[in-house]
Amino acid sequence: MNYPNGKPFKVNKAQVGRTGTLKSSKIDYGGRGMSLENDIEHSNSYYLKHGMAVIHKKPTPVQIVNVHYPQRSKAVINEAYFRTPSTTDYNGLYQGHYIDFEAKETKNKTSFPLSNIHEHQVTHMDACYQHQGIVFLLIRFKSLDEVYLLPYAKFQKFWKRFKNDGKKSITVEELRKNGYYIPYQYQPRLNYLKAVDKLILDESEDRV
Amino acid sequence: MNYPNGKPFKVNKAQVGRTGTLKSSKIDYGGRGMSLENDIEHSNSYYLKHGMAVIHKKPTPVQIVNVHYPQRSKAVINEAYFRTPSTTDYNGLYQGHYIDFEAKETKNKTSFPLSNIHEHQVTHMDACYQHQGIVFLLIRFKSLDEVYLLPYAKFQKFWKRFKNDGKKSITVEELRKNGYYIPYQYQPRLNYLKAVDKLILDESEDRV
Repeated sequence: MNYPNGKPFKVNKAQVGRTGTLKSSKIDYGGRGMSLENDIEHSNSYYLKHGMAVIHKKPTPVQIVNVHYPQRSKAVINEAYFRTPSTTDYNGLYQGHYIDFEAKETKNKTSFPLSNIHEHQVTHMDACYQHQGIVFLLIRFKSLDEVYLLPYAKFQKFWKRFKNDGKKSITVEELRKNGYYIPYQYQPRLNYLKAVDKLILDESEDRV
Repeated sequence: MNYPNGKPFKVNKAQVGRTGTLKSSKIDYGGRGMSLENDIEHSNSYYLKHGMAVIHKKPTPVQIVNVHYPQRSKAVINEAYFRTPSTTDYNGLYQGHYIDFEAKETKNKTSFPLSNIHEHQVTHMDACYQHQGIVFLLIRFKSLDEVYLLPYAKFQKFWKRFKNDGKKSITVEELRKNGYYIPYQYQPRLNYLKAVDKLILDESEDRV
């Protein structure tokens, strides 16, 4: 696969990772990270095309240090660094609701390691939740090929347990109990808005 | 370009797209754009800190072509290009409302040139508006040092006029008539949420 200018593509957002440092997890999870990311990308395009929702992935945060202008028409960034994102990867609008979520994959068979989530992302999700946003995580177990939507309100419990008791992960059973299973289908392959519908319904009851 | 583990990067099709070019407007307006951008950045931090709203600027979309790893701990992007954004620069959450806006400055004294706005940004704003988002533009006249919030519903009229009759700009008078003037104050300097409150009130009446 070559770039139109003939240069081979060398970078894969998911593999490079958010922090820009080569965490081993990024390398291990990268390939799989792509597939969930692509599924979500495809779903978001489908939702937008069919007027169902406006949800986008945010660009990878980059600190631009030096830009070269060979010609006025084309600027080349020749020094930049990856920055740690202060928010989640996805947000948007669905039926008048503000939607905010993070998507993660794990190769683990039995549990989801909370080390995948940054503290500041939790802070952001919490703020969005406090401001009546629909906030959740999409978690995919690569080996089981199962995807779950975990509402922030539920995730919060596990995060507190992590902070207080040091339990570093959420078991699959806990996810099955606290999250919404998202079955793969034809179009779009990962129709996560179906789970969001359930979440909105359940939260409207909880919050009333 | 290889990972330290020797695995080559893979292509992320989501990243494949025309190389972003720097529009002359970006070059001309960039410097001034900063000051409005800084005011908004400061306001957003203030809103977040005081639990008033969760509004962030999206990272600049960059097409990353080459990354160098001098050491495992720090990746340097040494070839990247600006991409044309497919959405607006700012979005977030305020009192349960999805907020979406674009901020622009102009050196013009009498009118705002619509060449500052990309077609696909209008498409995005329109989609957000259709999905009940609070959508607007923040426009600053550098020379007058006046900032206006122009609701998307009003902007739409001028965009259609541009498309149909070729009128390439919105006059200051038209902005004063159709937008909300945002006076500078002490804290935060540019308290644009005050104008958003008016917009929400007016739109709730219009939409009922």
